[in-house]
Amino acid sequence: MKKAIILLSGGLDSATTLYYAKKKGYGVSCLIFDYGQRHRKEIKQAIQVAKYSQSAYQLVKITLPWKGSALLDKGMTLPQDRDIIPDEIPVTYVPARNIIFLSFAASYAEAIGAQDIFIGANAVDYSGYPDCRPEFYLAYQEAIKRGLKTGVNGRPIKIHTPLIKKTKAQIIKLGLRLNVPYQLTWSCYRGAKYPCQKCDSCLLRWKGFRELGINDPLSEQIDENRD
Amino acid sequence: MKKAIILLSGGLDSATTLYYAKKKGYGVSCLIFDYGQRHRKEIKQAIQVAKYSQSAYQLVKITLPWKGSALLDKGMTLPQDRDIIPDEIPVTYVPARNIIFLSFAASYAEAIGAQDIFIGANAVDYSGYPDCRPEFYLAYQEAIKRGLKTGVNGRPIKIHTPLIKKTKAQIIKLGLRLNVPYQLTWSCYRGAKYPCQKCDSCLLRWKGFRELGINDPLSEQIDENRD
Repeated sequence: MKKAIILLSGGLDSATTLYYAKKKGYGVSCLIFDYGQRHRKEIKQAIQVAKYSQSAYQLVKITLPWKGSALLDKGMTLPQDRDIIPDEIPVTYVPARNIIFLSFAASYAEAIGAQDIFIGANAVDYSGYPDCRPEFYLAYQEAIKRGLKTGVNGRPIKIHTPLIKKTKAQIIKLGLRLNVPYQLTWSCYRGAKYPCQKCDSCLLRWKGFRELGINDPLSEQIDENRD
Repeated sequence: MKKAIILLSGGLDSATTLYYAKKKGYGVSCLIFDYGQRHRKEIKQAIQVAKYSQSAYQLVKITLPWKGSALLDKGMTLPQDRDIIPDEIPVTYVPARNIIFLSFAASYAEAIGAQDIFIGANAVDYSGYPDCRPEFYLAYQEAIKRGLKTGVNGRPIKIHTPLIKKTKAQIIKLGLRLNVPYQLTWSCYRGAKYPCQKCDSCLLRWKGFRELGINDPLSEQIDENRD
């Protein structure tokens, strides 16, 4: 069985990517990062998604002593209630986050003989992070081709970004077809008991479900709690 | 003062690179990795070099749960007594090591507003690791230009590889001119009290000093110990 590494964050996109890779016939190993994110709940949810899908997973702990992002520093304010995310890169940007994640994925892939890496990056309904855009992945693909043993040996590891050009609604539609357990995923940048429904990540998720005219299973939990 | 991140391993090349960057007028911050290497002594020596040069430093601990390299796994045998290092990539290769190190350096650089990263990679007297070659750095440079906020803003971070085309002798000659404290550096893949003088790393170092007709300060320590 062909092996693949899946970068799994606990969010909606990466869970969909995991199920997409499984559907394509890959034997998957999920890579989950504890990088000091304020929404630590996503780590727990990523593990739940991996377990629910009966996938192998590795949890890697990373320390970024330099902070500098509202996702790492609880003292910084998260943007909220923004109907339209402006073009500028938001304070939730973590310098080189996907670059770091991919470098571990490349190492893991090579160590276990996987030739494929899947990442749920998206450049349509997204927060404007530069390392989510197709032009970055093209260049990074070339870098690992040249910098890894497998590339030198003529068997370069391929990075797959199956969601990169999809809207959030298209991603959810795909995921529902694949039976992704969205009730286990977590998108909210705050790590509270229920999604805040105010941060960029909550609003992007909400937009996706609304466009499809269906309820987010997490919203239903909130509503039940409110009754 | 313009800021730079220096990847500091404790070895001869990265110490020379540190002094080179300081000479060029950079305010340096060294990045030292504990990645589970068997030669843990190099971490201690890297810290000593940073302190001796009065440079700021950050120690970052990384866990690579997948092993797969003789530098991570003490159960694997290190190649030794090889006069000529063959073309094939040796068992000491750590998958994606420099790719991971550079990804942290890129994050650190952006977080503190440094526009330059220095790495002592060398593709002449080296062990054949693919992530030490110029073609890798060209591609990686492009990847971080596209994947970082600073790249999008038109101020891409530059990766410097000042030693990449130098022989070990040329590196040492440069370092001696810059007063690099080679007595504090550590190259041996074994982490014993004295260099083994058998592993690839020891032999490359020895070759450099021999070509210059001078003694390695570490060899002198060994000789004194033997007397």
